[in-house]
Amino acid sequence: MIEKIENVRDARWFSNLTTFIIIAYASVLGFKTIGDVEAKYSLFLQFADTFVTIYFIFEIAIKMVAEKKFINFFKNKWNLFDFTIVVITLLPLESSGFAAVARLLRIFRVLRLFTARPELKAIIDMLIKAIPSIIDIVILMFIIFYIYAIIGNFFFAKLPSGLWSDFLVSMLTLFRVLTFEDWTDVMYEAMEVYPWAWIYFVSFVIIAAFVFFNLFVAVIIGEMQKLHEADMKEEIHEDSKKLDILLEEVKSLKEELSYIRSKE
Amino acid sequence: MIEKIENVRDARWFSNLTTFIIIAYASVLGFKTIGDVEAKYSLFLQFADTFVTIYFIFEIAIKMVAEKKFINFFKNKWNLFDFTIVVITLLPLESSGFAAVARLLRIFRVLRLFTARPELKAIIDMLIKAIPSIIDIVILMFIIFYIYAIIGNFFFAKLPSGLWSDFLVSMLTLFRVLTFEDWTDVMYEAMEVYPWAWIYFVSFVIIAAFVFFNLFVAVIIGEMQKLHEADMKEEIHEDSKKLDILLEEVKSLKEELSYIRSKE
Amino acid sequence: MIEKIENVRDARWFSNLTTFIIIAYASVLGFKTIGDVEAKYSLFLQFADTFVTIYFIFEIAIKMVAEKKFINFFKNKWNLFDFTIVVITLLPLESSGFAAVARLLRIFRVLRLFTARPELKAIIDMLIKAIPSIIDIVILMFIIFYIYAIIGNFFFAKLPSGLWSDFLVSMLTLFRVLTFEDWTDVMYEAMEVYPWAWIYFVSFVIIAAFVFFNLFVAVIIGEMQKLHEADMKEEIHEDSKKLDILLEEVKSLKEELSYIRSKE
Amino acid sequence: MIEKIENVRDARWFSNLTTFIIIAYASVLGFKTIGDVEAKYSLFLQFADTFVTIYFIFEIAIKMVAEKKFINFFKNKWNLFDFTIVVITLLPLESSGFAAVARLLRIFRVLRLFTARPELKAIIDMLIKAIPSIIDIVILMFIIFYIYAIIGNFFFAKLPSGLWSDFLVSMLTLFRVLTFEDWTDVMYEAMEVYPWAWIYFVSFVIIAAFVFFNLFVAVIIGEMQKLHEADMKEEIHEDSKKLDILLEEVKSLKEELSYIRSKE
Repeated sequence: MIEKIENVRDARWFSNLTTFIIIAYASVLGFKTIGDVEAKYSLFLQFADTFVTIYFIFEIAIKMVAEKKFINFFKNKWNLFDFTIVVITLLPLESSGFAAVARLLRIFRVLRLFTARPELKAIIDMLIKAIPSIIDIVILMFIIFYIYAIIGNFFFAKLPSGLWSDFLVSMLTLFRVLTFEDWTDVMYEAMEVYPWAWIYFVSFVIIAAFVFFNLFVAVIIGEMQKLHEADMKEEIHEDSKKLDILLEEVKSLKEELSYIRSKE
Repeated sequence: MIEKIENVRDARWFSNLTTFIIIAYASVLGFKTIGDVEAKYSLFLQFADTFVTIYFIFEIAIKMVAEKKFINFFKNKWNLFDFTIVVITLLPLESSGFAAVARLLRIFRVLRLFTARPELKAIIDMLIKAIPSIIDIVILMFIIFYIYAIIGNFFFAKLPSGLWSDFLVSMLTLFRVLTFEDWTDVMYEAMEVYPWAWIYFVSFVIIAAFVFFNLFVAVIIGEMQKLHEADMKEEIHEDSKKLDILLEEVKSLKEELSYIRSKE
Repeated sequence: MIEKIENVRDARWFSNLTTFIIIAYASVLGFKTIGDVEAKYSLFLQFADTFVTIYFIFEIAIKMVAEKKFINFFKNKWNLFDFTIVVITLLPLESSGFAAVARLLRIFRVLRLFTARPELKAIIDMLIKAIPSIIDIVILMFIIFYIYAIIGNFFFAKLPSGLWSDFLVSMLTLFRVLTFEDWTDVMYEAMEVYPWAWIYFVSFVIIAAFVFFNLFVAVIIGEMQKLHEADMKEEIHEDSKKLDILLEEVKSLKEELSYIRSKE
Repeated sequence: MIEKIENVRDARWFSNLTTFIIIAYASVLGFKTIGDVEAKYSLFLQFADTFVTIYFIFEIAIKMVAEKKFINFFKNKWNLFDFTIVVITLLPLESSGFAAVARLLRIFRVLRLFTARPELKAIIDMLIKAIPSIIDIVILMFIIFYIYAIIGNFFFAKLPSGLWSDFLVSMLTLFRVLTFEDWTDVMYEAMEVYPWAWIYFVSFVIIAAFVFFNLFVAVIIGEMQKLHEADMKEEIHEDSKKLDILLEEVKSLKEELSYIRSKE
């Protein structure tokens, strides 16, 4: 019995079915927002909701039963992720004052696409693995932001646009400058009072861009290095081992020869 | 006879002639839009049109005749592409109500440059081949867009700009934010009602950019890996084979020696 | 005598002196534009101009004399470049109606920095060498621009902004869209008349960005491949040759042995 | 005694403590700018300031004492960096007219995070090392900017926006164009007087982007080359050495054989 359930769980058609239901449900959620659809089709929408809720419970039950030991289910991080989403979207918040929140939370069901499709799981794992390699540059970026935000707030706090009114707002303004979004408007406003302000902005743009640029290169080089280590060295190592064997063979040959010679 | 036609089809001058005619025709099409050119030169423009139509039929006829079996012509995807373009631009839509559409469709004749120039064919093939390697990240991007669009529509639907009025409009607004195009205007409008809205926008920009960044790196690394496999391994494999031969040679030497020794 | 001149021409101090004079002259040219400097220092500015003109003639004369055969001077493309700049900035246009043009042409003297500094020469050569590897993608980009420009002009020609009034203006507008510069303003204007216009703009942005993205990757991979061929293969080839020698040595050993054996 | 102090200096908990204090102090500095916090908590803020000042003196004293020779402390560039920051933020500027400057200078204490965290030190060193590999392209960029700035100032100086009023302002405007920030506004203004101005802007954008693009590729390729030299060659060199040993061994075998043969 458990084996049959295991087969169902691992079957491609089962994950495809889940994918299909999630996408259909996602379309319904998106569809709901257009025009007066919500009023007209409210019964259908409610039905879709109930159906997906039941399917999700059913699907997670299969995954739980398929495990030999119940606890193993929770050892897999992705299962935990699934379980959390199913539980959160089951909470009976509708009747309470949080009906709107409950409806919003339901969209996180779309995140279950990650677990339904192995390829997406792999990409998410890859993205998570990429974080440590950039963490220090993020800290550096933060220091640059911090110093510029304090200086910006110190000088430009009284400007009428209010873009530098306190430390957090200054950080947001700098983030905006980093994306080049109307950064010259911010600069020209500051330059009216402080004509040297262009130094502040141009230096920030250049430093931030330079750090970003190097982050990019560093990540590519880092990935390359891993690639080399995994891919090439193995091949060359094999050759290296063969060379070692050869050397020993030749040495034993030499010994044989010298033995022959000594005997003569 | 067929051989002669085949020679014509494969000749560089023939593809160059086609290229030249397409470019000339493209220039005419562009030229037509400037000032009152269309009124003055209408006869010339009509002549150019007829000439290109006849040349294209003539050219595709040569390609068809050059094949030994007529059906082979349609086995090549690029021939099919050519044929479709020629047929579509031949449809007698001018006299009907679709005269404007017919005139517009004619510009797709420029796409025939792809088949006239082998280098462009190669690039198009390369671009098409590059699609699968990014398909999963595109799906991931779509999920991120989807979730942010639903949340954005949920909270910001009533904002006066109407940038979040329904799900599809929200997707378009998010695409705009991704290109950094006046994204702060969108954010400041939302922050007037929801002061926490900056979290929504900044997180979207950072997550989307991070995924994009990794997409880029992943594609480069993937291409590198292919390069290695095709380029380097072959060379090293050759060395590896030589080493194997060497080892066997040395072993046979050893056997010879031990034979000599045993005989003594 | 010629040898001495040759030494001067190749001396580092000579190219450094030229660099210094060009930079000083460039600073003067920039300085001239600020406030009423031109009126006050007109005598000094005129002196600087005359001095640089004489120095450039003197410098190019040295380079000419240093060649054993006069014609060799013109065989070097960089010398030709220098010569053209010196001659153009010597033309007696000042007295004629083209005084302004003559003054403007003088700034191209700054380009002589390329020839004064070998590092810059190398970079320019490198950039020129990089052009063929992207020429086909540029053509492809042009085709995409062309088709979108014709379609854009066809539909949007009557829009009040006049951004699509003829073919060339449409190309410029598309270039603007490619740089993401206020592209949503262009789109929203078009969407007021044609609600489907977002498909036109979003597809253009995605296609153009995708082609650009692949251009980037293709260039990097291409450069890598060159690197491999030049750098690594040589090293491995050497090993390969050693292996060949080894194989032959072992074979001759075997022959020796079989000779010994046959003799016994 | 000195050994104990050395242990403290090198201990991870000591650098962690410093990191924690710097971050806490940075938070306080940021916190100070929000609303009327400064008025309410002025005593606390003053205390925090004094505490950090004393801690920094204490910390740098430990680092000084831990050195066997006092002068060694100043031989390390990072120590010099720390020392400068501590001294500058100690200057008794508060009582003088420079109180505001003194308060601002204090934020540079956050830069001490670099020395407190070895990872950040490494990144800074890496970034500094990356500068020479781009210095020549920066010079090239500067030449492009220079020429375009002079031409822009020459033609557009009288435009009402004042974006080209002198050489330095033109440079700033070109920097803005390089970041694509409302560059079409600048262009359209110029095109009203000089219809050909689009050539100036489009050519600048394309040339600057092309140089940038190649800079990027060149840096990646350069880093790759270093990687290869450091990583792979070593491995292959080892194999190469083994091959050399093998060859010699086989040669000596041959000699032995010929010796045996000659004796027979």
